[in-house]
Amino acid sequence: MLISLRDALSRIMPIAQCAAEYETVAFDEALGRVIAEDVRSPHDVPPFDRAAMDGYAVRGEDTFGASPENPIKLRRASGLVREREYMPVQTGMKMPDGANAVVMLEHAKEHKGILDVFMPTPPGRNVSLKGEDVKKGEIIIKSGKILNAYDIGLLASICKTEVKVRKMPEVGILATGDEIFDPRERRERSGGERSGGMIPDSNSYVLSALLSSIARPELLGIVSDEIERLKVAISDALRSCDVLLMTGGSSVGERDLVEDALENMGGNIIFHGVAIRPGEPVGFAVVRDKPVFMLPGYPVAAISAFELIVKPFLMCGVDTCMKIPAIAARNIPSSAGRTDFVRVRLYESDDMIYASPVRLSGSGILSSMTKSDGYILIEDEKEGVEKGEKVIVHLLSYQPRSDPFIQP
Amino acid sequence: MLISLRDALSRIMPIAQCAAEYETVAFDEALGRVIAEDVRSPHDVPPFDRAAMDGYAVRGEDTFGASPENPIKLRRASGLVREREYMPVQTGMKMPDGANAVVMLEHAKEHKGILDVFMPTPPGRNVSLKGEDVKKGEIIIKSGKILNAYDIGLLASICKTEVKVRKMPEVGILATGDEIFDPRERRERSGGERSGGMIPDSNSYVLSALLSSIARPELLGIVSDEIERLKVAISDALRSCDVLLMTGGSSVGERDLVEDALENMGGNIIFHGVAIRPGEPVGFAVVRDKPVFMLPGYPVAAISAFELIVKPFLMCGVDTCMKIPAIAARNIPSSAGRTDFVRVRLYESDDMIYASPVRLSGSGILSSMTKSDGYILIEDEKEGVEKGEKVIVHLLSYQPRSDPFIQP
Repeated sequence: MLISLRDALSRIMPIAQCAAEYETVAFDEALGRVIAEDVRSPHDVPPFDRAAMDGYAVRGEDTFGASPENPIKLRRASGLVREREYMPVQTGMKMPDGANAVVMLEHAKEHKGILDVFMPTPPGRNVSLKGEDVKKGEIIIKSGKILNAYDIGLLASICKTEVKVRKMPEVGILATGDEIFDPRERRERSGGERSGGMIPDSNSYVLSALLSSIARPELLGIVSDEIERLKVAISDALRSCDVLLMTGGSSVGERDLVEDALENMGGNIIFHGVAIRPGEPVGFAVVRDKPVFMLPGYPVAAISAFELIVKPFLMCGVDTCMKIPAIAARNIPSSAGRTDFVRVRLYESDDMIYASPVRLSGSGILSSMTKSDGYILIEDEKEGVEKGEKVIVHLLSYQPRSDPFIQP
Repeated sequence: MLISLRDALSRIMPIAQCAAEYETVAFDEALGRVIAEDVRSPHDVPPFDRAAMDGYAVRGEDTFGASPENPIKLRRASGLVREREYMPVQTGMKMPDGANAVVMLEHAKEHKGILDVFMPTPPGRNVSLKGEDVKKGEIIIKSGKILNAYDIGLLASICKTEVKVRKMPEVGILATGDEIFDPRERRERSGGERSGGMIPDSNSYVLSALLSSIARPELLGIVSDEIERLKVAISDALRSCDVLLMTGGSSVGERDLVEDALENMGGNIIFHGVAIRPGEPVGFAVVRDKPVFMLPGYPVAAISAFELIVKPFLMCGVDTCMKIPAIAARNIPSSAGRTDFVRVRLYESDDMIYASPVRLSGSGILSSMTKSDGYILIEDEKEGVEKGEKVIVHLLSYQPRSDPFIQP
């Protein structure tokens, strides 16, 4: 009944690609967006040969044979630099016509329009050639990149004021379960009285925060475990959202009302149960042409399913995660036939980075996420990782940390 | 005239600390904010002893001596688990009273209210003890941390609906220079005609994007190089902003109108010129009790000065940068007496991470930033880095990349 992570992704990715939409936005509103066009440089950078050092623009040939004992004397040019002439230049300035090298300040001495050069400076030395950094027409931002602050600056610098980007989907988050309540309700009610369950809903808030950089999340509240109420809530959600995430209700227990409700509405259950751990009860359905994810109720299981399945779907496969290699600090057991999502903490020793699994007892333990630097995946064909083995650590969601794991 | 980076920071940090303000926000609006209180767990996690595996809750002592050949038989309990009794449990469930261990499914066989146990399962095995993960009263989020998605979930899970965080300062960005123009202006004007200079202002947009996660940036436009206009623009800016960043005008050229204007307004120039490269012409002043940074006009110089000086100031020293150790892939020259900000690209070879300097000719080259994974600092007492030497790479601003430098 369980399918592999690979199978799950191969079933949902075509749906993700079909659903991708695009829009054009102002460049200064494109931070963090996935660009959907190649951007080419409209000109050479530098646009002309320019001085790469403060000093004196010369014809390099004129300086051959120069030495502190036998300095070569050059005259100050007026305009064009001719044979045995020089012109003072600052870093970044256009090279004067005729000059092809820059003698560094410390290799010459200027006095009353005469320059003593102490060091041979061959043609090309200390000059940035036209187009050296970026050639006209060269791609400077590739389609599919997530635009960062420097990209925004690069767009400004070429006056590209609009860019085509992938639309951010509206993602509804609907929590289910009689046992949970919205922690915000506490604020509004007096005396701590509350309707509903005993466990605060944290999943909705974690998912909303994780989504905030890649989609437009919308919290849709909590529905109780009654099939008719579920159907009404799902119907409402599908009217306003492009994608729906449901948490809870998809646990290992016998009844699964969420799946029943989705089927009842004519939905097509693409899969329900993936060999990942935690996160096994994750499911995916298409209902009224909209993608619906069923996520487990246990917080870390929901996060694992989100990172491994929902995020690749929403990003259409664009990888948002930085990865670094590390050494397993301990044996990490795992069973063949499933993919393990193992939270790790990183530390440094003897110039190597070690990844140590964050061992906490259940997939309900959110604090295991806040204590982690990232996660490793143990693929389904592998039976665990041995101490000393190399692993690839996925740094978690680029959340900045105030306690960097390595202090210089 | 140049002061060291260390001196520059030691002069501005007391001012940053004094200017820090705090506010209380809803927990679900605190993503990315610096928390200004310790958060303690109001209860034990788990709140009771619970099953860490699916299986059968038993008294561990009863299973001693069990083997496949000589299984030990237990009776199904009703309520309390007594001697030689068991109770089926699922992961996460509260342990039934009397039981102290969980026999795994594969180590037993249940049939009509009788359990055959094939494996000794000592007391405590497969049980998460009350308070094992988090003890009541333990600090779960430390003051000074930047709150990530999991922290928001953790706050939800303990119904802490409001948190004290550091206020995000309003930061004005004022570009100066006759040579620059706002690339957005092009959109509005016809025929490409524009007032002002020839170089598009990219600094304002890079700074605004870099600030967006740590402050409230406000673009204040471009002022031309005239002292009276500068004074008016600075005056206006200081009325609305907590901190002012000025770009351009603070170059190595002879005249520095920005400094003149600030002094003219009664400002106190704390320093102007720091031994960092690029970014040397950076300056700091206090004008009408507000901090004002003078940033260089060259894009990479402005970014270097921002990362090394402005950001620590705005974050009151909270480090937002993840760092990883790497091996220098080449010699990187540097002079003693200054701190070098060297952009690097990372790659992996033989399980090691190498940092290769991104060598592009000038500090004007924004594409060198978009091509970088991070930067290294060569401290002022060091003369360069040798190939093979260990370096600490500051990953750049947690900008997600679509092309992770290491593919698994």
